[in-house]
Amino acid sequence: MPLPQSRALDRSAFLLAARGEPGPHTPVWFMRQAGRALPEYRAIRQGITMLESCMRPDLVVEITLQPVRRYGVDAAVFYADIVLPLKSAGFDIEIKPGVGPVVADPIRDAAGLAAVRPVTPADVPYTTDSVKQLVSELDGTPLIGFAGAPFTVASYLVEGGPSKDFAKTKALMYSDPDLWHALADRLADVAIAYLSVQVEAGASAIQLFDSWAGGLSPRDYERFVLPHSAKVFESMASYGVPRVHFGVNTGELLGLMSGAGADVVGVDWRVPLDEAVRRITAAGAGPKPVQGNLDPALLFAPWEAVEPEIDRILAEGKAAPGHIFNLGHGVPPNADPEVLTRIVEYVHAKSARVPA
Amino acid sequence: MPLPQSRALDRSAFLLAARGEPGPHTPVWFMRQAGRALPEYRAIRQGITMLESCMRPDLVVEITLQPVRRYGVDAAVFYADIVLPLKSAGFDIEIKPGVGPVVADPIRDAAGLAAVRPVTPADVPYTTDSVKQLVSELDGTPLIGFAGAPFTVASYLVEGGPSKDFAKTKALMYSDPDLWHALADRLADVAIAYLSVQVEAGASAIQLFDSWAGGLSPRDYERFVLPHSAKVFESMASYGVPRVHFGVNTGELLGLMSGAGADVVGVDWRVPLDEAVRRITAAGAGPKPVQGNLDPALLFAPWEAVEPEIDRILAEGKAAPGHIFNLGHGVPPNADPEVLTRIVEYVHAKSARVPA
Repeated sequence: MPLPQSRALDRSAFLLAARGEPGPHTPVWFMRQAGRALPEYRAIRQGITMLESCMRPDLVVEITLQPVRRYGVDAAVFYADIVLPLKSAGFDIEIKPGVGPVVADPIRDAAGLAAVRPVTPADVPYTTDSVKQLVSELDGTPLIGFAGAPFTVASYLVEGGPSKDFAKTKALMYSDPDLWHALADRLADVAIAYLSVQVEAGASAIQLFDSWAGGLSPRDYERFVLPHSAKVFESMASYGVPRVHFGVNTGELLGLMSGAGADVVGVDWRVPLDEAVRRITAAGAGPKPVQGNLDPALLFAPWEAVEPEIDRILAEGKAAPGHIFNLGHGVPPNADPEVLTRIVEYVHAKSARVPA
Repeated sequence: MPLPQSRALDRSAFLLAARGEPGPHTPVWFMRQAGRALPEYRAIRQGITMLESCMRPDLVVEITLQPVRRYGVDAAVFYADIVLPLKSAGFDIEIKPGVGPVVADPIRDAAGLAAVRPVTPADVPYTTDSVKQLVSELDGTPLIGFAGAPFTVASYLVEGGPSKDFAKTKALMYSDPDLWHALADRLADVAIAYLSVQVEAGASAIQLFDSWAGGLSPRDYERFVLPHSAKVFESMASYGVPRVHFGVNTGELLGLMSGAGADVVGVDWRVPLDEAVRRITAAGAGPKPVQGNLDPALLFAPWEAVEPEIDRILAEGKAAPGHIFNLGHGVPPNADPEVLTRIVEYVHAKSARVPA
């Protein structure tokens, strides 16, 4: 059931665009906006591990708010990691700096699967506390909750860490589809539980990150991944909050990912937004709002090169009923925060609607 | 001017398919077929560095022939590395095992550019010698020569090594387009010189690897990369040998890469071959032969899962005037050679044309 929210929040640029309604300007946020590009983030994280910081509401609140203050973005994104709920439910996983999630005992059989236990609100009290406090402090600015999609999370659990080719994950799909589907189904439940905690505590939207789904052929995605992501979206439908879906390299999957139940489809920099809208529409559910898609590499280019790219993206985004401006992937750790601020200002100025 | 070749070679399954003519069966070869997956390769490389081995005709010939003997593939691919011609012309580059090409002084300015010198046949005498000997030993089996495309080679020179996001390379394109184009133009000349050496010594086809072009948006590819790859293809046109072009993650670029002058377009596993043919055709030059596109991860799946994938790829490949079966990327080092042999046998059996 939709939760009550303030009128200011309800009419915020982000939520209007996510619902495909006209708003005051094209909203902007950045994936990984809360993170290493910010000196104030690096300062607060001194001597504290990533997962530790995600379990401390004082840090989560501060880190989530830092980019909102600094950049003037139209949405906050909850500071967490896609493996946090698993870790919180007792699964042995760490985040190794400079590497990513690392699993001591990768899942290769039914015994390994048993280590993936359901997540309950009691496992993540810090998430509930942090979201509640954030919603109160953010006032009219929406908070986006997020979770890792079953495939992307499973890839870490099966490979044991980050992978280039997902060979072990794909081999599991083919060699033991029952085990694969059982694992992905459990991870769908983990995502549902974790997203529900965030929405019930007041998050205004959710994003399901299937960051690495683009490594799959459309056929494998459809058989092995789509049903599980669709379960997540379907379970979240009753909350009535916009559901965003994103992965890099997903040009061939945009129609399928839209069909999984996303209200807003995130697009990386490879596919122009108008082409993305065509693919989403061709897949059958009509045009949908899109999110994206400035190449993060542009953050290292001279500003004169950035403006025409933003202009192009804003123009291409008009093909969709709603456009949320974002990068085509996360903010690189060595990005200059000044450039991100300038992008927000430029997008706002260029897209401002003059009241009739 | 086309070079004379034997009738057996001219009517080989590979060259017929590459020209879009019907042949006895769908030809098969594997990118990186000469390499670490073969125990006989690992044995011969003991104590010899990669680049050293590429400069010894005895090793080049043996390593190039190993997969032809072992797998019964329809083409040999010259054993070399895309950085070999640069190294041979005195550029300071190494291949670090487990990492890839590493450059001590990455190119960031005009002074760096000066280190990229033209390549002449005298720089690569071992290439001429190896190709000549191979052509004689291979008899009716075509030898594919290859080179790295300007963007992919430039990415190593600018980043200093392998990269995930090509941030420095893209930043150079945007911040100093003159320097970028000068660098890419020199690397086009390097590719032309190196491919010409191979074709003049008897190679029957060439493949230009733009392995990492898929990291670029179509717009960046068109402005910064296409003109240089087109120069390579145009310069090679007069030899009359089929020119193959390939990169991973290039679903959005297939039309542009075809338009650069490829006779055969390589496709990774993300885009079904019939869809690839549609994109190539839509780009304007009519349908072309395609090459691909089994997901290399399938090599680790049970055989029962491999057959239906091959069947699907053979069926989708019928949309093209010619289909060369291959993986969608290189052979993984830990692949089982038995599986590759079985794939060759299966493709040959399934695609054999019964004489009328």
